[in-house]
This record gives sequence, structure tokens and C-alpha cells, in this order.
Amino acid sequence: MIKRGWLKQIRCLSKIRAAESSTQANHIISNKQQLYIADETSPGSIFFLPHGTRIFNKLVQFMKNQQIKYGFQEVITPLMYKSKLWHKSGHWENYKDDMYKVIGNDLTKEDTEHEYGLKPMNCPGHCIIYSKFDRSYNELPIRYSDFSSLHRNEASGALSGLTRVRRFHQDDGHIFCRMEQINKEIQNTINLIKDTYKVFGLSNVEFTLSTRPEKFIGEVETWNNAELQLENVLNETTKDWVKREGEGAFYGPKIDILLTDQFSKKHQVGTIQLDFQLPKRFELKYTNEHDTKSQPIMIHRAVFGSLERFFAILLDHYQGKWPFWLNPRQAMIISINEAHKNHAIELQKQLSGEIINSDQIAPLTGYNFNVDVDSRNETIGARTKEAIQKGYSYIILIGDKDIKNGTHAIRTRDDRKIQNLTTEEIYSLFISLENSYK
Amino acid sequence: MIKRGWLKQIRCLSKIRAAESSTQANHIISNKQQLYIADETSPGSIFFLPHGTRIFNKLVQFMKNQQIKYGFQEVITPLMYKSKLWHKSGHWENYKDDMYKVIGNDLTKEDTEHEYGLKPMNCPGHCIIYSKFDRSYNELPIRYSDFSSLHRNEASGALSGLTRVRRFHQDDGHIFCRMEQINKEIQNTINLIKDTYKVFGLSNVEFTLSTRPEKFIGEVETWNNAELQLENVLNETTKDWVKREGEGAFYGPKIDILLTDQFSKKHQVGTIQLDFQLPKRFELKYTNEHDTKSQPIMIHRAVFGSLERFFAILLDHYQGKWPFWLNPRQAMIISINEAHKNHAIELQKQLSGEIINSDQIAPLTGYNFNVDVDSRNETIGARTKEAIQKGYSYIILIGDKDIKNGTHAIRTRDDRKIQNLTTEEIYSLFISLENSYK
Repeated sequence: MIKRGWLKQIRCLSKIRAAESSTQANHIISNKQQLYIADETSPGSIFFLPHGTRIFNKLVQFMKNQQIKYGFQEVITPLMYKSKLWHKSGHWENYKDDMYKVIGNDLTKEDTEHEYGLKPMNCPGHCIIYSKFDRSYNELPIRYSDFSSLHRNEASGALSGLTRVRRFHQDDGHIFCRMEQINKEIQNTINLIKDTYKVFGLSNVEFTLSTRPEKFIGEVETWNNAELQLENVLNETTKDWVKREGEGAFYGPKIDILLTDQFSKKHQVGTIQLDFQLPKRFELKYTNEHDTKSQPIMIHRAVFGSLERFFAILLDHYQGKWPFWLNPRQAMIISINEAHKNHAIELQKQLSGEIINSDQIAPLTGYNFNVDVDSRNETIGARTKEAIQKGYSYIILIGDKDIKNGTHAIRTRDDRKIQNLTTEEIYSLFISLENSYK
Repeated sequence: MIKRGWLKQIRCLSKIRAAESSTQANHIISNKQQLYIADETSPGSIFFLPHGTRIFNKLVQFMKNQQIKYGFQEVITPLMYKSKLWHKSGHWENYKDDMYKVIGNDLTKEDTEHEYGLKPMNCPGHCIIYSKFDRSYNELPIRYSDFSSLHRNEASGALSGLTRVRRFHQDDGHIFCRMEQINKEIQNTINLIKDTYKVFGLSNVEFTLSTRPEKFIGEVETWNNAELQLENVLNETTKDWVKREGEGAFYGPKIDILLTDQFSKKHQVGTIQLDFQLPKRFELKYTNEHDTKSQPIMIHRAVFGSLERFFAILLDHYQGKWPFWLNPRQAMIISINEAHKNHAIELQKQLSGEIINSDQIAPLTGYNFNVDVDSRNETIGARTKEAIQKGYSYIILIGDKDIKNGTHAIRTRDDRKIQNLTTEEIYSLFISLENSYK
């Protein structure tokens, strides 16, 4: 839950301005590579085209795998809830203007009990799941992750590309834990954040700690204890952090993560927020060692933040030159003439990995590389140029000589240098690039 | 788009009755295995708990991999569209009562232009994507797949477990193709359907062909041609098919797939529907060989149909005894006493696969097995019994003897027979079970 106010509005305005120029550039790359589109029938909702969806899905898969390692359990939760839930969570009071109302046919005009709100956040759904079972101290921390669609009713004037949207997805996670577990959980989250950004070559990361504001809920002692833990973790894990006194949310202190991209532009991405309020509103409990009930603390955390916004940052960052593992166009095979077409198709199958290469039913786990064939009746130069423009990581030529030698002439999009490699060598190269996130 | 009418209502009633008893049984298994819950704040929307989500995600992953093999391209499309889109698609006219309205804050009471409908189907979104680009005959067939959330405003009295829900997901796909490509596309779809059901041991599959009804759109000749192609494919691919004269949708003929489970209960699952209408309403075109414009035919197809309903069928079918590959609880390691606990945790890590076993960042592609440890201070008998009740495929014991021998005592949930296998042997077993969908 994010606090609304003048500070946010000022930030919004500056974000919009900064976003405008990069949105333009993003659109140009997206058009060239056919990544996403928008349509007037659903303003602020992105249509991810096949190649954009590949990138989106890889980001999600990447994060799902990291979250498994960090002990998160994915859940699937509803998209709409009756307004009484939003009253309970406090969203109706604080966030109503930014929510969409959903109305079914069974609703009469006076009937507000059957009015729904389309969720802007996943937290209340996770509180419901927590509350459905008796919880014991030895089950904690419980960590739920969720990649649901979220909707926020942003003003239509503020909509902009992938950065200001009405429908988006987060790599959202909520940790229910005890006060003494906060340190370890925050430490893990910061490590995950640092490791993740490093994979994308986004090494310029800043952390800010926002502390107790004037208006707050909970005990001062709880706040002090929590803030001290956050400070300790920040000192242990990172040198670059800044304290923002009094800028925490009313429900708990928070750490925000700012990324500076290669153009010195700052982006707010991940967040780690302690929450003393929602566990209270949902009356969440666990049985402690003394067989009495205690209240867990809730941590909201996201690493990418909005996947749509992170996608936009990556567009800026890579300028369309996706690293191999993330590239929706990993290799283009160009057959020199008609006689080599079948060889090209056979090579495509071999290099595509286990999903496509399987004889019948594709396996559940296996490599899947995006390899295309261009056997059009155009010059090799023209086809190579087009493949480079579209951003293919590798261009592979097949002609008489290659078939005779049992190797293929392969080059990258950035370097004219040609290597002659066997199918097995190319396939191993693809695997090692994916495995090292290159 | 499904035709509404008395026939459907009668089918609904009989389905509800049949569903009631199996819903009861499903709830018992779900409670025992903690697979899903419902909550009054969102009637008809399922909350998938961590273990239910694992099954759900494996079904999705299974189908995504098959669809890649069959040339589908996944897209991500918005969940809500302005009512004018639903007017264009014909849903407002034919389907309005089953749709949820979404209202934003920018909507005045008289303003219907900014009223949204929450999507009950993906087809209009896919038509929008098709229509955004100039299409040529040599690009066809274009095949889009989509796993979006769908919402249908079912009457609250009709809601029942996983089978009658308001929010659900389909393994939805739309193929845009030419008349002469229908045969091949339908053949592929039928093969995929048969192969898929076989994986789950659901071998009792029936196909029905529903032909031109009295009220129809399009040319009789187009209908005859299409129906003839469908008949031919059915004759080529399957012996078990029944013709239902005049029962097609007004927009095209269709093939429905009925599954009979081990309790002789029939379920409508997959569907293949030709559609002459939506391409017309959305004015979809492609440039043909003569450089003039033609209209593609649209095929709606789903293999699982509703993933929630298919989940329910599998609950019935397996009675909680999930095959290893699909099991959210694949192995339980029981350490004989405190001294073996660390060995148990080490073994857990080794058997969990590459995602968990990685030192730092988890790889994008890799095995991930769900292995738990029970090191509680209970008898081995009690812990084994509990693991069997929870449905673990394998139970692995660790004690002094095992550590000394370098092997582990492993048994299945169904057979007391114990084998002594090394870590590598168990891990290879897991891989071969997953790869063969056992």
C-alpha cells in the first residue's frame, strides 16, 4: 500500500516528464521488434505481442526460480473482491479513487454489498490465505509470491507507454514473520535484489530507508526496534544508503531501491515495506512457544517492482540489443539458396532445444531457444542486415561449403567476424549463454 | 463464443447435479492436501494455495511447451475493454448478462463510452492484435495462445467448487488461417488433444461434430466446405465421433470433445470452433497471392478447456494420488533422529534439482522437484503414515545405516517394499519420471 499525497504528485509529474522522452525511444524499438502495442479500447493496458511476451515470460520465469530458492510459495488469488474487504484492508478509505469498481448483474442500485473492487494490490488476498489456517511459530516465516494482474485507475492524461499504465504485474511477495526474523528476511531480499540487478548489468543501485512519520500507527518501541534492524541490515549489506527521516508509510518503515541506468536516469524499482497495520486489520495470529497468540509482522517486497516498468527500463538499457538469454530472437539461419532450405529447417529444429526437438509430447523441463529461418529469395547481405536490425543475437549461414564441412558460419549482430562451428558447438554455446545469463 | 439457450440450460442443470457429488469429494482431497480455498469476499474465484498452484502451474507449463511445438505464439492481452469493443464483437448483444461491468472514476453516469466489460473470452483481444499489422498469405496460419484470467457472471446459486466458477483460465488459442489450411490445423489440434489426454491416462475420448444450424451467418457453400473438411479430419484421426446435425454455433461448425473418467462420468473439455463471423466484424484481412485482400477464417480451440475444471477432473481421476511429475509433494525425507537432520537437509537440497541447488542465481531452465524434510520428534511409523496421507509419491528414510552405506531407504506411497538407492539413483529416477510424465 503506497501513501498518497503531495510528495507523490510531485514525483509523478517529474516522472512523467522524464518518461516522455524514453517512452518515445521505447516505442521506436518496440515497433521495430514488434514487442507490444496499445489500443484505444483499453487505454493503459498493454498488449504484449509474441516477441514481447517471450521477454515478459522470461522475466517472470527468472524471478519464479529465484523465489523458489528463497523459500517463496506462489499462490493464485482472485482479481476482484467485495467492497467490504477493501473497507477492512483500509483501501476503500485511502485508495478508493485509484480503484476500478466491478458490477455484476445481481447488483441492484442500492446494493453496495455486492459491489466489487478490482484489486490494485495483492496484500489483502494473501492475508485471507494466511487467516484461513491455524499458524504456529515454527511455520514462520511464511512467504507468498503472486504475479497477478493489478489495476489502478490512473488519470488518462498520465498514461505513458509501459511506465504509467492502468494494468500491470508485479513480482509481488509478502512475508509473514516475527520481529526477530526481520533482519534475516530483509537481508535475503536485499541480496536477491542486488544479485538480480547484476544479471541485467544494472549495477548502480541506491537504497533509501524511510522512517516513522508524524502520523503513524503502532507502538513507538516497535517502530524503533524495526528501524534499528533495517539500519543494521543496510549497514551489513550495502554502503550506498540514505536515510529519509519521517518519510515512512504510516503503517511501517520502508526501504526503496533506486536504479540509475546508463543514461544517468533514476528509476524506483524494488521496495521493501514493513507493515504493522494489515496484520492487525485482518487479525492475523500465530501460536507462539508459550502457547498464546502473537501477531506476525508483514513485509511487502518486490524486486522488479512493476514488470511493465522494468521492461521499459530494460528497453532503455539495452536499446533493443537484448542479451542472448533474454532475446526473443536468438538466432537467424539464412540458407544461401533454395537447395539449402531443408538443411536450414533441420538445423533450426536441432538448435531450438528439447521442447521443439521432442518427437511427440514436449517435456516439462527443457531448453527452448528462439531460432528462425530466412530462406527468402533475397541477397545474403540484405537478409543479414535485416536480421541485425531486428536484433538477432546470432546469424548463421548455410551453404554448400557448410554442408560439406559439417559446420556452420556463425556471427554475432555486433561483429562481422565469422566462426565455423558444428551444430553441437553452437547448441552448447546457447546453453552456456543462457546458464550464465549472458 | 458459446451459444446460449434452452439446450445449454438443461445441460447446466444436469452438470450441476453431477458436479455436486464430485465437488464434495474434491473438497475433501483439497482440504487434506491444502490445494485451494474459497472466500465469501470473492464468490466463484478460487484461491489456489501453494500446493494447488504448483499443480496449476505445471498444467500451464505442460501446455505452453506443447503449444510451442505446434507453432503457437503466446500473447498477453488486457482484461477489460470499453463496451464499444463488445458491441463490435457481438458480445454485448449476445453475452451481456454474463459479463461484469467495470467502472472507473472518470465515468459520469450518462457516459457509456468509458464503461468497460471484464473479458469473458480472449478472442476480441486476439482480433485486435491481428488487425494491427498488414498480413500476407505466407504468414498464415497465425496462432495465438493466451492464459489470461476470464470472468463470467454465473448466477451465485450455480457456483460449485472448481467446476462452476466466475473467474477461470483457459489454455485458449486462436488460429487465423485460410480455408485450405483448416484440415491441417484441425488435425494438429486433434492430435494434441489425444496426446495430452493420454498423458493423464484419460483415454476415453469422444468427438462430436455440430453442423450448420437453422439460424446462421455466412454462405452455405463456405459451411459445406468447412464441414466436409472437419468430417474428413475426424475420419482420418478418430473412429469415435458423432455428428450432431444443426447444433453448430450460428457463426460456424464445431467439434466438442467429451472425456469419460474412470467413474464413467462425462466431461466436456476441449473444443474446436470455426468462426466466420469475428473476422468479418473485425474486418480482418490478408493479402493473397493475387495481391488482393481475403478474409481469414478463425479457429477457437482449447485442449484442457477451463484449467479449473480440468483440475477438478484430475482430482476426481487421481483421487489425490498425483503422478510423480504433477505431484506438489514429490518426496518426503524422514530423518530417523536428530543426528540425521543435517544429512536430511543436505539430501533435500541435492534431490530438489538445479533451481534450488544452484549456488547463487538460479538458472532459467532446470529441474525443480518438491522435496520436504520431516525431522519432528515423532515415530518413523507416524511420520511415514502422515506423509502417505498427504500424498507424497516417495518416502525416503535417513539413519546411521544409510549414511554409512551411502544409500537411502526409499519406498512409494503405495508399496511398503523398500529399495536402497544412492542419491544419484534417486535423482535420475525423478528425472526419468518427469520426462516420461509418470
